[in-house]
Amino acid sequence: MTFAELWSALLPIGRHAGTGGYRRFAWTREDHTLREWFAGECATRGLDLVEDRMGNQWAWWGDPDAQGAGVVTGSHLDSVPDGGAYDGPLGVISALAAVDRLRAEGIQPDRPIGIVNFVDEEGARFGVACAGSRVITGALPADRALGLRDSDGVSMAEALIAAGRRPADLGVDAEALGRIRVFVELHVEQGRGLVDQAQPVGIGTGIWPHGRWRIDFPGEANHAGTTRLEDRRDAMLGYASTVLAARDAAYRNGCLATLGKVRVSPGGVNAIAGSVSGWLDARGADQSAVRQTVADIAATAAQAGAALVEESWTPSTAFSPATVGRLQQVLPDAPLLSTGAGHDAGILAAERIPAAMLFVRNPTGVSHSPAEWASDADCLAGVNALAAVLADLSRVPK
Amino acid sequence: MTFAELWSALLPIGRHAGTGGYRRFAWTREDHTLREWFAGECATRGLDLVEDRMGNQWAWWGDPDAQGAGVVTGSHLDSVPDGGAYDGPLGVISALAAVDRLRAEGIQPDRPIGIVNFVDEEGARFGVACAGSRVITGALPADRALGLRDSDGVSMAEALIAAGRRPADLGVDAEALGRIRVFVELHVEQGRGLVDQAQPVGIGTGIWPHGRWRIDFPGEANHAGTTRLEDRRDAMLGYASTVLAARDAAYRNGCLATLGKVRVSPGGVNAIAGSVSGWLDARGADQSAVRQTVADIAATAAQAGAALVEESWTPSTAFSPATVGRLQQVLPDAPLLSTGAGHDAGILAAERIPAAMLFVRNPTGVSHSPAEWASDADCLAGVNALAAVLADLSRVPK
Repeated sequence: MTFAELWSALLPIGRHAGTGGYRRFAWTREDHTLREWFAGECATRGLDLVEDRMGNQWAWWGDPDAQGAGVVTGSHLDSVPDGGAYDGPLGVISALAAVDRLRAEGIQPDRPIGIVNFVDEEGARFGVACAGSRVITGALPADRALGLRDSDGVSMAEALIAAGRRPADLGVDAEALGRIRVFVELHVEQGRGLVDQAQPVGIGTGIWPHGRWRIDFPGEANHAGTTRLEDRRDAMLGYASTVLAARDAAYRNGCLATLGKVRVSPGGVNAIAGSVSGWLDARGADQSAVRQTVADIAATAAQAGAALVEESWTPSTAFSPATVGRLQQVLPDAPLLSTGAGHDAGILAAERIPAAMLFVRNPTGVSHSPAEWASDADCLAGVNALAAVLADLSRVPK
Repeated sequence: MTFAELWSALLPIGRHAGTGGYRRFAWTREDHTLREWFAGECATRGLDLVEDRMGNQWAWWGDPDAQGAGVVTGSHLDSVPDGGAYDGPLGVISALAAVDRLRAEGIQPDRPIGIVNFVDEEGARFGVACAGSRVITGALPADRALGLRDSDGVSMAEALIAAGRRPADLGVDAEALGRIRVFVELHVEQGRGLVDQAQPVGIGTGIWPHGRWRIDFPGEANHAGTTRLEDRRDAMLGYASTVLAARDAAYRNGCLATLGKVRVSPGGVNAIAGSVSGWLDARGADQSAVRQTVADIAATAAQAGAALVEESWTPSTAFSPATVGRLQQVLPDAPLLSTGAGHDAGILAAERIPAAMLFVRNPTGVSHSPAEWASDADCLAGVNALAAVLADLSRVPK
C-alpha cells in the first residue's frame, strides 16, 4: 500500500461537508473509525497492537518486552474543530509508510520499532491538549482527566463509557513508557520556517512554554431593548476589552496570545450577556515573557471582575540533545527548528524520555484550518527521512 | 382553574435543569407541548380553536365570522435562550384567567373575544422576532421565513416539516387578521417604569424603533501557537473592537446597542478565529438617533472588513390613540409607558389594526433571564385589568 493509498483512506473520515475541515474528537464515532483504521493497517503489516491504560494504540514490529525498549514513532489522528488533514495523520501515515520502506529495502532492525496513535492530542473536546500522553506520564492525573467536561457537559468518564471503555483503567502506565527507548514524532510544520530555509524536512529541538486559561466574565442577563445602559452588567464588554488587551500584551512582550473560543450565556440576540467565558492561549520562546503576557491580560480581565483559571501549563521543553544530534547526522541538510505548538513528543521529553521531532514543510504556514497543506513531494521526503532515522536508531552498533 | 393552577402547569415545560431558564423554541418538542397545553385549556373552556396560515393559535368565545370581528388578547409561549417564566406566558395565562373571570361574573360579551398564542415571537431559533405575526401580515414574506436557518443549519421549512406541518401553508392571512377588531396584549414589563411610579399595571403607548444586524468579521484560521502576530488575520479582534464601539455609540446617541450573540469558527482554544459573526441589537426612543448609532458601529466594523447585514428593522410604532384612550378610561390609575421591546402588538399596529398593551410591574426590571419575576398580587391585578378592558371593549353601546 502506497503513501497515497494510505492517505486517501483517511481523507473522508470526519470531514465536514460544509467547511471542508475535520471534526475528529476524542471518543466519538469518528475517533472510533480512525482507531479501527489504524488497527487494521497494523494487522495488515503483522504488527502487534497493544493499548496502554489511556487507550493510546502502540503497534510493534518486534517485541520490546523480549528484546528491550524500542524506537517509537507516530503521532495522533484527532483534530481541532474544522482542522486540516495533515496535523497528526501525517505522522501516523508516514510511520506506516516508513516501516513499509524499511521492509521493502530488506532491513531487519536490531531493536523493535513501534508506531503509536496517541488519543486526544488536540484537547478539542475536553480542553486539555495531549491528554493521551499526559495521563500515562502522570502529568494529567486520571481523576482530573475523568472529570473534564465537553461543551455538552459530558465528562471524559462518561465519554469513555459511551465508547465502551473503562474509566477505571486510566492512570500512569510505566510499562508502556518503559518500552520507549527513543521517540521521534513526524509532524507537518505549523509555520514557515522550512519555507524560509527552502528545505523539505527539519529537526525539532524543543517546544516553547505554553498554556491555556479560562476566563469567566460575570454579568447580568437582561433584555437588550429595555435595560438602560447605566443599569447593565454586560459580560461581553469585559471579554472584548480582554481580547484587545491580549493582542497588545503579546506585542509588548514578544509572545503570542490568542482568544479563539468563547461561550456566551444566554446567547440571544436580544439578551445582554449574563456570562461570557473566553479561553486564552499564550506562548513564546521565553518563559518569563509568556508569564508577563498572561499577567498583563489578567490585569485587564480583573477590571471586569474576571480571574484567569489555568487549564494547562507546559514549561519550555528541550528535546534530547543526543537524539537531536543523531538526527542531524542522519539528515545533514535538515535545519533545526523550535516550535510554539505542543506535541506528545514534548510531554514525553518532559518525563526525560529521549525524544525529538521531524517537521515537513508547510508552504503556507497555515495549520488548524482546512487550508493546511503539504506537497506530495515533501510528504515523501518526510517518509524517507523518517525511514532513515528509524533505520539508524534501531541499529545496534557491531 | 385558578391563575395559580394555570401557572404551575406551564412551569416545568422547557425549563433547563442547569440554568433554571426556559428554552422554548419554535417548532421544537417543547413548543409542541406548549401548543397542546394551550389547545387543551381552550377546549376545557369550550373555546373554538383555529390556526391561521402561520400556525398561530386563535381561540374564540363567540364566532367572529358570524358576529363580526372581535376583541383579541393573548401573547406567546416561546422564549429566548434561558429566558424567564413571564415573558409571553403571563399574557396567555392572564387571557385565559380573564375569560374565566368574565364568565364567573356572568358577563355575556356582545362581541366575540379571542385569545391568541403567537408562534416564534422571540425569534430565538431563526433570528427574526415576531415571525408569527410578521408572516400573516406580510411584513416577513413567507419565502424569506422558510429560508431562515437555525444554528444547526435547519431551515424553518425543514423545522415545519419535522413538526408535521406544511411549509406551503405559510403566507399572508387576511381572514385571520380580519377577525381582529382590536388587540390588547398583556405583558410583564421589561424595565422599571411601573416600579418608579408605584403602580401594578400600565398602558403601552408604543414601541421604540428597533432592529437586528448580523456582522461577519473575516479572518484566517491558523494555529495560535505558531502564527506570528504580523501574519495573523484574527477575526476576533474586529469583533471585540465593534463590541466596545457599540457601547460608545449607544452612549453618544442616547440609544441602546447590544452584542449578546456571537459565533466563532473554528472555535478551538488553539486556533485563531477564521471568522466571527456577531449580532447587534439596537433601539431607542428616537429613530434617527438609532440610525446614527448603527452607522457609528458600522464604521468600526468596516475597519475590520465587516459589513452590517440588516436582519430586521421595525420603525417606531404608536399604538392606536383611540384604544389607548379607551384603556385609560377603564384603568384611570394606570400610567402610560412606551417600550424598547418588540411585541406582536406592534406588528399588528403597524398594519393599522387597533392595538395596545397592558404591562404588569416587574420589581427588578430584569427580563430575558431566569430572574425575571412579577408578584402574585401584581399578576392578579393584571388579570383584573385585562378582564375589565375585555368587558369594556366587547360591549356594544346600547
